[in-house]
Amino acid sequence: MNDFQFQNTTKVYFGKDQLAHLHEEVFKYGKNVLVVYGGGSIKKIGLYDKVMNELKEHDIEVYELSGVEPNPRHTTVNKGAQICREYHISVILAVGGGSTIDASKAIAALTLADTDNIWDLVEKKVTWANALPVIAMPTIASTGSEMDKSCVIANVEKNIKSGINGEVLRPKAAFLDPTNTFTVSPIQTACGGFDIMAHLFDMNYFVNSDKYPLQFNVVETVLKTVREQLSIAVKEPDNYSARATLLWAASWALNSFCTSGYKTQAQLHSLEQFSSTYDMTHGLALAIITPKWMSYLLNKDETVAKDFARFGINVMGIKDLGNDKDNALAGINALQSFVKDELHLPVTLSEMNITDIDLDELKVKACHGEVSLPKAYRPLTQEDCLNIYKMCL
Amino acid sequence: MNDFQFQNTTKVYFGKDQLAHLHEEVFKYGKNVLVVYGGGSIKKIGLYDKVMNELKEHDIEVYELSGVEPNPRHTTVNKGAQICREYHISVILAVGGGSTIDASKAIAALTLADTDNIWDLVEKKVTWANALPVIAMPTIASTGSEMDKSCVIANVEKNIKSGINGEVLRPKAAFLDPTNTFTVSPIQTACGGFDIMAHLFDMNYFVNSDKYPLQFNVVETVLKTVREQLSIAVKEPDNYSARATLLWAASWALNSFCTSGYKTQAQLHSLEQFSSTYDMTHGLALAIITPKWMSYLLNKDETVAKDFARFGINVMGIKDLGNDKDNALAGINALQSFVKDELHLPVTLSEMNITDIDLDELKVKACHGEVSLPKAYRPLTQEDCLNIYKMCL
Repeated sequence: MNDFQFQNTTKVYFGKDQLAHLHEEVFKYGKNVLVVYGGGSIKKIGLYDKVMNELKEHDIEVYELSGVEPNPRHTTVNKGAQICREYHISVILAVGGGSTIDASKAIAALTLADTDNIWDLVEKKVTWANALPVIAMPTIASTGSEMDKSCVIANVEKNIKSGINGEVLRPKAAFLDPTNTFTVSPIQTACGGFDIMAHLFDMNYFVNSDKYPLQFNVVETVLKTVREQLSIAVKEPDNYSARATLLWAASWALNSFCTSGYKTQAQLHSLEQFSSTYDMTHGLALAIITPKWMSYLLNKDETVAKDFARFGINVMGIKDLGNDKDNALAGINALQSFVKDELHLPVTLSEMNITDIDLDELKVKACHGEVSLPKAYRPLTQEDCLNIYKMCL
Repeated sequence: MNDFQFQNTTKVYFGKDQLAHLHEEVFKYGKNVLVVYGGGSIKKIGLYDKVMNELKEHDIEVYELSGVEPNPRHTTVNKGAQICREYHISVILAVGGGSTIDASKAIAALTLADTDNIWDLVEKKVTWANALPVIAMPTIASTGSEMDKSCVIANVEKNIKSGINGEVLRPKAAFLDPTNTFTVSPIQTACGGFDIMAHLFDMNYFVNSDKYPLQFNVVETVLKTVREQLSIAVKEPDNYSARATLLWAASWALNSFCTSGYKTQAQLHSLEQFSSTYDMTHGLALAIITPKWMSYLLNKDETVAKDFARFGINVMGIKDLGNDKDNALAGINALQSFVKDELHLPVTLSEMNITDIDLDELKVKACHGEVSLPKAYRPLTQEDCLNIYKMCL
């Protein structure tokens, strides 16, 4: 096992009756709160009113930034930081999906940095070390941003998604109420759930080193659990147990325990260049790419077949067919069927009427401008990425 | 799922090359360190010298408290706090097993409390809220005290083990180096490993409520992993992977993630009154008690048989015999064989020549002076405890 350091300081309030603790967390930092949210769905579900009542009851000064986009724009982040400076915001409360939480983290860093433009931080033109405290209230089980130290921002002008990360960005507290996810549509539930799975695939399950028994077995179990509970949540939106399981799993998939010691490059998240290009949901793009990536890799070497066979049996629950190759194929097919028949998601880009694709541009982005992803589960060249993209068409 | 709050702030340095970070952690709090350790095994393995060199190289003032007992005495804790006060200790470094770390936490609290006797804190005669910072360097995979917020102390005069707990007792940092556990004897390795399993059994696996899919599945996987890796570590003391897995698993068994939401009373740890009475290793006592407790409960109701059957298949790896009762029995037998044949531990008290047992006294202690343990997996009366003890003779 490689040496590693682990710390995750976020205080989690989990459950349906925790909102009364919100003011306690706010008061740790001050009295001026910027509430950040997206398109207004938190108003429809009544969460906005509940949060505002709780804050105002304790005489907390509330400012607002609404309209954070699904792939949050850097211009929105810039606007948020301007508000924070103008009104001496002491803590940012992010109420929404991963995008809202990510945008809030970026605002938190930009507010205390020596520039008005978050992209200067992304491109490392301006150094930064501090950030305002962030409190996260996720309304979908997906990115796990609520316990994580990184954020991803979209620069539409440059047509690129990138981000910043640092221990100071980790939310100080997270309020995880499964009932806040009841109204997430089946499609968005599915996309969020697949994002959880992709985090686990990427950094912890398909690894380029020895498998560490504890982390590996736990990740496999979390994957299986997410698969099972995701099927339930898509069918029964107000199943508390399924929603709670997914919400807690989302945080754990990305809170550094599962990755401890591994140094594998996140290949699926690198290949996932569709969402910024087509403003497609991140999890959906991952659901399209993952089975194709597996099919493409299957014949690379015997260990791949063995790993995918184990995945088939232990995660997808297929019957043992007696040899790795068949089990691996059955596992990939089971994953593809899961995406199609249980999650009801498209499995190709053409199903989404996306045809004007510049694959040559995408393959460069996938490799972050380099010639390959050398530290992926299996190294991928730009050519490999191109071939995988062709399978997604 | 019950509502819960979760936070674990300990910074973990995991691996064989992390000691160079020790002074960074110390300097966060000051320059006067009390190094607490046990009977001197850390000198034999060279760890003492390595730690001292690292501290002195950075001009850190070092004080020492050695001779912490396997079940740490409250008088030792009192002595430690006296040293801390006299020499204005700024941080305590615990190098050793769970007892050393527990004693250090108690010293940390007592130093800042308004009494010279830790037992005043245990008996709540004196209130306390603060503690000196503790850095933990465990040398055995066992109690998980290095990421936990509680400690257990023995009062030999009163013939009782009890403790204190609080968020401020959680170690600020933990240095987990698997190579520091290479020289732990097979017997102590086995006892430590069983302690890990008992933490999981007690608070997370045999639960008195619904099973929460994520936590339950993860705990089951950790149990299976510990069982497998413990067998290896007992046979191959310097198997890095097995030692690393056990060390990391020990921390995770008790660091609050696995328990999140559960409210089950820790029955095995309540029944475990042998170690304070006979100065027996805690994990050994648990290994004697657990299979007897399972056999005793087996016929209580059908759910017990179902739960134990699942345990047999998923944790102990028995072949499915077709019905719960048979699978449950096979699971219990497999656990008993595991203790006897793989861990090479005694399975009864008489094998240890312990015969002068006042069972009536023990049964009262097991129920903490009450008539029963009402919130255990299955409620246990004093009579139940007595019957289980009789099976351990």
